[in-house]
Amino acid sequence: MNFLEERIMHDGVVKEGNILKVDSFLNHQLDVELFDQMGAEWKKRFEGIEVNKILTIEASGIGIACIVAKHFGVPVVFAKKTQSVNLDGEMYTAEVESFTHKNKNQVIVSKKFLNENDKILIIDDFLANGCALQGLISIINQSGASVSGIGIAIEKGFQTGGQIIRNMGYKLESLAIVESMDPTTGTVEFRGQ
Amino acid sequence: MNFLEERIMHDGVVKEGNILKVDSFLNHQLDVELFDQMGAEWKKRFEGIEVNKILTIEASGIGIACIVAKHFGVPVVFAKKTQSVNLDGEMYTAEVESFTHKNKNQVIVSKKFLNENDKILIIDDFLANGCALQGLISIINQSGASVSGIGIAIEKGFQTGGQIIRNMGYKLESLAIVESMDPTTGTVEFRGQ
Repeated sequence: MNFLEERIMHDGVVKEGNILKVDSFLNHQLDVELFDQMGAEWKKRFEGIEVNKILTIEASGIGIACIVAKHFGVPVVFAKKTQSVNLDGEMYTAEVESFTHKNKNQVIVSKKFLNENDKILIIDDFLANGCALQGLISIINQSGASVSGIGIAIEKGFQTGGQIIRNMGYKLESLAIVESMDPTTGTVEFRGQ
Repeated sequence: MNFLEERIMHDGVVKEGNILKVDSFLNHQLDVELFDQMGAEWKKRFEGIEVNKILTIEASGIGIACIVAKHFGVPVVFAKKTQSVNLDGEMYTAEVESFTHKNKNQVIVSKKFLNENDKILIIDDFLANGCALQGLISIINQSGASVSGIGIAIEKGFQTGGQIIRNMGYKLESLAIVESMDPTTGTVEFRGQ
């Protein structure tokens, strides 16, 4: 097990409905030392790949992305999520529909901050069905920028998001891939990497 | 002028209605090297003051808070903003009314992550009328924790938020205090510190 898998085993809480609560270190209270380790690990996994900007999505991706950005020496851009549609035309937008919640959200990035010369590393905390990630890729495609890679902290390997992204040829590096969880015993099984 | 004031002069855009756009480095695209300088500056300004946790609010406070947290060697907790009211009773909540938008928002933090032993440094990107900040202070008071200090990147000194907070005896350290802005010339006047 790597450092993130160990942390999940130690501090993660498995709930009914395939919910993994990691709010004590990843997405409500934030362990920035852990994020630092994640940054070092992704820096290694994406070695030799050009990255000039990190793209993430509010809110829980932002903290991880900022600490990771220090390892790559690049700025972060975070996409905004909104159900509003009052846009001034200077934004890239993608409409993404959540499989889970059945609602539609817009993912928005100002056109000022993405262009065809950008080599983007996408960073986010979770990947399940991948709706948010699909929205981010759509926005990068609209801008003409290219996706250098995708770093996810925790992938739910029993949902389809990761497989779809890998099928499409993207270099997706999830630090922990959960194969199954058992709320009665609290155990989490990880995919071997 | 300090490094942040210089950056505002260089890259900030003054718009009608006392709006200062700093989205190219502070709250949409994020310059993590600048955040690092901010962290070092706050570490100096809060020297000798005990801090064991940083509290901020989604979304644009999170990135700054995480980089600053590295300087203090502490974790971050970010409060969630929502208009929903479906809470499970395990949350501290504060209802804050925006003077500007006239709407009400709830500021929410899980009870797990704040307690009476905590010495909290609040970090946020902007302070104008201070509604969000008042909500954070309310939550800290509910938890029994204490406010060690408040670090704000940009304070709009011509609005009341900062004065109220200083009147109440909090140690508020704003790295740039805007006294006035002129959208026709694009100039920004800062308060001497």
